[in-house]
Amino acid sequence: MPVEYLPVEQIPLVTLTDDFGTADGYVGTMKGVILNIAPNTRLVDISHEVAPQNVRQAAYILYVAYPFFPPHAVHLVVVDPGVGSARRPIALRTPAGYFVGPDNGVFSYVMACEPVEALVELSDPRYRLVEVSHTFHGRDIFAPAAAHLAAGVPITALGPPVRDPVTFPPPRLEVASDGITGEVLHADHFGNVITSIGQLVWSGNELSLEPAFRGARGKGQEAGDGEHVRFRADEASVVVAGQEIGGVYRTYAEVEPGETLALVGSEAHLEIAVREGNAAQRLGLRPGDAVVLRL
Amino acid sequence: MPVEYLPVEQIPLVTLTDDFGTADGYVGTMKGVILNIAPNTRLVDISHEVAPQNVRQAAYILYVAYPFFPPHAVHLVVVDPGVGSARRPIALRTPAGYFVGPDNGVFSYVMACEPVEALVELSDPRYRLVEVSHTFHGRDIFAPAAAHLAAGVPITALGPPVRDPVTFPPPRLEVASDGITGEVLHADHFGNVITSIGQLVWSGNELSLEPAFRGARGKGQEAGDGEHVRFRADEASVVVAGQEIGGVYRTYAEVEPGETLALVGSEAHLEIAVREGNAAQRLGLRPGDAVVLRL
Amino acid sequence: MPVEYLPVEQIPLVTLTDDFGTADGYVGTMKGVILNIAPNTRLVDISHEVAPQNVRQAAYILYVAYPFFPPHAVHLVVVDPGVGSARRPIALRTPAGYFVGPDNGVFSYVMACEPVEALVELSDPRYRLVEVSHTFHGRDIFAPAAAHLAAGVPITALGPPVRDPVTFPPPRLEVASDGITGEVLHADHFGNVITSIGQLVWSGNELSLEPAFRGARGKGQEAGDGEHVRFRADEASVVVAGQEIGGVYRTYAEVEPGETLALVGSEAHLEIAVREGNAAQRLGLRPGDAVVLRL
Repeated sequence: MPVEYLPVEQIPLVTLTDDFGTADGYVGTMKGVILNIAPNTRLVDISHEVAPQNVRQAAYILYVAYPFFPPHAVHLVVVDPGVGSARRPIALRTPAGYFVGPDNGVFSYVMACEPVEALVELSDPRYRLVEVSHTFHGRDIFAPAAAHLAAGVPITALGPPVRDPVTFPPPRLEVASDGITGEVLHADHFGNVITSIGQLVWSGNELSLEPAFRGARGKGQEAGDGEHVRFRADEASVVVAGQEIGGVYRTYAEVEPGETLALVGSEAHLEIAVREGNAAQRLGLRPGDAVVLRL
Repeated sequence: MPVEYLPVEQIPLVTLTDDFGTADGYVGTMKGVILNIAPNTRLVDISHEVAPQNVRQAAYILYVAYPFFPPHAVHLVVVDPGVGSARRPIALRTPAGYFVGPDNGVFSYVMACEPVEALVELSDPRYRLVEVSHTFHGRDIFAPAAAHLAAGVPITALGPPVRDPVTFPPPRLEVASDGITGEVLHADHFGNVITSIGQLVWSGNELSLEPAFRGARGKGQEAGDGEHVRFRADEASVVVAGQEIGGVYRTYAEVEPGETLALVGSEAHLEIAVREGNAAQRLGLRPGDAVVLRL
Repeated sequence: MPVEYLPVEQIPLVTLTDDFGTADGYVGTMKGVILNIAPNTRLVDISHEVAPQNVRQAAYILYVAYPFFPPHAVHLVVVDPGVGSARRPIALRTPAGYFVGPDNGVFSYVMACEPVEALVELSDPRYRLVEVSHTFHGRDIFAPAAAHLAAGVPITALGPPVRDPVTFPPPRLEVASDGITGEVLHADHFGNVITSIGQLVWSGNELSLEPAFRGARGKGQEAGDGEHVRFRADEASVVVAGQEIGGVYRTYAEVEPGETLALVGSEAHLEIAVREGNAAQRLGLRPGDAVVLRL
């Protein structure tokens, strides 16, 4: 390398994922709290447009983004319909980063992909604002905890261990000899529809399935039925919304503009798209809808 | 504390609140101007989605966010329907931060909450861009001023004192023996409706009113009629949009999903909400609508 | 100056312009990649709301913003309908900054305004992520290249020279003795309509045209027909959408609220606006529509 790079771990880094929108100043308020505590922190927006109270969507968006951050990053997630109730505020440490937010399942995908090294309840008042409201724990509990973690406070200082975090079941992924059944996880800004069928890994013209949510990603673990699924991409087809789409492609540009296709998307999940168009609208697809990959 | 924190005041910090939206690059342009002058500045978005030319809404959003930033922060506010006219560009210094923007009332709530230590007109050309357009003072006058303030230029260097800033009257807040009448200030991203009835401070099951906009916040000053209003939260009710809502709660989770409630929100103002729903839509509420808290 | 400013060039700076929206975490992912490589980088959002696959709109938004950034800034632009096809990933260096993105014409306006000092294909695998997907080169190729450039890697290290970049023709700008014909470039967040008739430079009550897209801006070069066009602003009129609008103003505040006007906007282009209103909606104007400035 011709240049000197700073050590990544010297710069505190906090990401934000929430359902606050960007109009009201709530996100800015959380950032003010963080910079008041750890003024050198880099702040990165992941999303403020999670659908209100949609914990599963937040879990998915976080799953897409966190692997690309350095392991000292603190991922602050505030989608919190139970704010002010008995739900616990938590933080966890994994080899891929720190996570701070409500104990409502929002870290289910992280916990399905990464070993959890520590998981604590955010109870120590030294790491909260002095006054804690009943309705905005993002500002009063989560942002301060994230800032202190980013600044180097050990996670175990924040509160006692939690042994029974809330998680929701992994998304549908049923492997049979003639196909794989999954579900729609997310429709993105372009109308591309990402499914639970992943991770799909290319090897020449063949694809193999390494289930994403049953252990650490990319570690080559086994499929649900105990055998490694492997198939030719051009012989597979996808059945979704009563339509059959032939073949699994590598990229949008392999079909004509306006054409519907199935491909392996950038997260290595099966994706349904329309080149330069909106597949979610055209096919009327929504999270939870069934998707079958016929082998 | 187990870690060393940097002194907060060493890192220049500028926040941005405006009605520019985020699609056109105008905000990015202002940030480029700031980083050209003060390259180490932390930039924090408060909101770029103030309704076009809505000075009162900007004033409210700023009011929510600024108290959570360190006192060396510079809050740049550009909602400026009078750009290019005779309205003055100003900056003010308070113990809670610096504020830069047009002299059109956008700092009315700040001035009602904080003592103003200095207030100047931004007239010194050394602290503007060399070429000043007639239509984008955010880029050419306000952003440079904010950057220079953030870098440590004393506010008095920017121009002569202003003694008669434009302010608009505080929002409605009428205290009588049988109730408090206020108005809707803002409907947020969730549809939660924040009113001018605040700040409401809990003491056990009782609430007391410490008017937000008549002096420094949180200093326990008296209510408008000279007596401290104090009442039981569960015996109060809220009348809004021809409906009566019983009780004042602490948080959303105290009622069932879909239920309408009144609560003390995170800014300590009376708020009307629907748990996991949108109160502004359900009740058809808009800024300026009357709200009565019956005691 | 009463304060010490840091040298601008010491702080790596990357701006982002793309069509990803802000809901899905794709932008956050690119930022994670950048901070993993160059952790001290300042990240500035220019726009994530370019219309999907609208390369011309991205080119325009970039044109508005880049001149206000320091020359060591790296402008990352990802509007990339051809991702995964044979279109090349490129980077260019100009005296006004670095630019990284797909070779699809998105840098046409930059190349029409700035001398290109170096232009390379991003082919060296040392400056990409280890695994490169077929659908998200923003994350896997462009963001890493931008980070390495920001950190100080010489542009020539990233790959071999490109001598035939894709560009699209400059927008319409036809100068005749009785008028100038141009086209709508962009309708902004406020509904202000920016046209290709620029740059218009004031001199007293007169305006002169210095074509924006035919050489370095602000260098006073000649108009298309070889003569410098100069005219009185109050005697000109604008014909657009079958309507004639009299005069060219300096700012919105010169007419009454609700009135339609033509003015020289903040980019020194002819602009059609409605004071405190939305001209794009009122006149039904869209990019490409003809505009005539009658002299």
